[in-house]
Amino acid sequence: MKQYYFEDLEPGTNESVKNIVTAELIKAFADVSGDNNPLHLDQDYAATTRFGKRIAHGALTSSFISAVLGTRIPGLGTVYVSQSVTFLAPVYIGAEITTTAKVIRRDKVKNRVTLETTCMVDDKKVAEGEAVVFVPSRPSFEE
Amino acid sequence: MKQYYFEDLEPGTNESVKNIVTAELIKAFADVSGDNNPLHLDQDYAATTRFGKRIAHGALTSSFISAVLGTRIPGLGTVYVSQSVTFLAPVYIGAEITTTAKVIRRDKVKNRVTLETTCMVDDKKVAEGEAVVFVPSRPSFEE
Repeated sequence: MKQYYFEDLEPGTNESVKNIVTAELIKAFADVSGDNNPLHLDQDYAATTRFGKRIAHGALTSSFISAVLGTRIPGLGTVYVSQSVTFLAPVYIGAEITTTAKVIRRDKVKNRVTLETTCMVDDKKVAEGEAVVFVPSRPSFEE
Repeated sequence: MKQYYFEDLEPGTNESVKNIVTAELIKAFADVSGDNNPLHLDQDYAATTRFGKRIAHGALTSSFISAVLGTRIPGLGTVYVSQSVTFLAPVYIGAEITTTAKVIRRDKVKNRVTLETTCMVDDKKVAEGEAVVFVPSRPSFEE
């Protein structure tokens, strides 16, 4: 678990996580969320759609953004303020998603940091958006 | 599983789902997403934070938005285009979240619908945002 303090987060600072989307992970996400739409769970139904086969929930992809923010950048101490995400392409079973959060600006009054959040499968961007998080300042030890 | 066609979705049309946030659900979401930040998992750590005790991942709350869109409105046939969400208040273990999606406008050119998405715990709004989804038109049976 990493911890960047507010002062450590310069524009451009970034971290990534990688996740492989398995059928088991999609089923687990459906169970946690309650989203049992057959586009994600039923191969026969999915074959009748524009996608041709089962796809991951967009919100599963979004959950990896939570992971990169909560465990890598800023990591410990992060408080999630807001997130936007646009889903650009379907994510199929077996895909490896690389999710990256990169600092784009800081608000020194509120100790908030805005990060660009991007999810890639190979060279294809499957989701993009922005996160805003509250980040604690580095403690000062004055005695 | 419900299915609203594009033509069925008037501004104001809405549906809700209810979910109780348990410690087990938080652990399951941490496992699925990889977000094992101790604010969500470690009571001793959480006690040292501004929240005083463990809170649910914001992205777990967001996952219930996926469920209301994917299973209630529009339900079957929905394709997730984008989501914004702002986290307004912490969600503690034991909370019952009511997640509502309400149509606010339609784009007839692209068959897209924008819905206001709101997560409430009792009378407190804990998250709010907007979803955009693609929704199929009602099939016409002409012979």
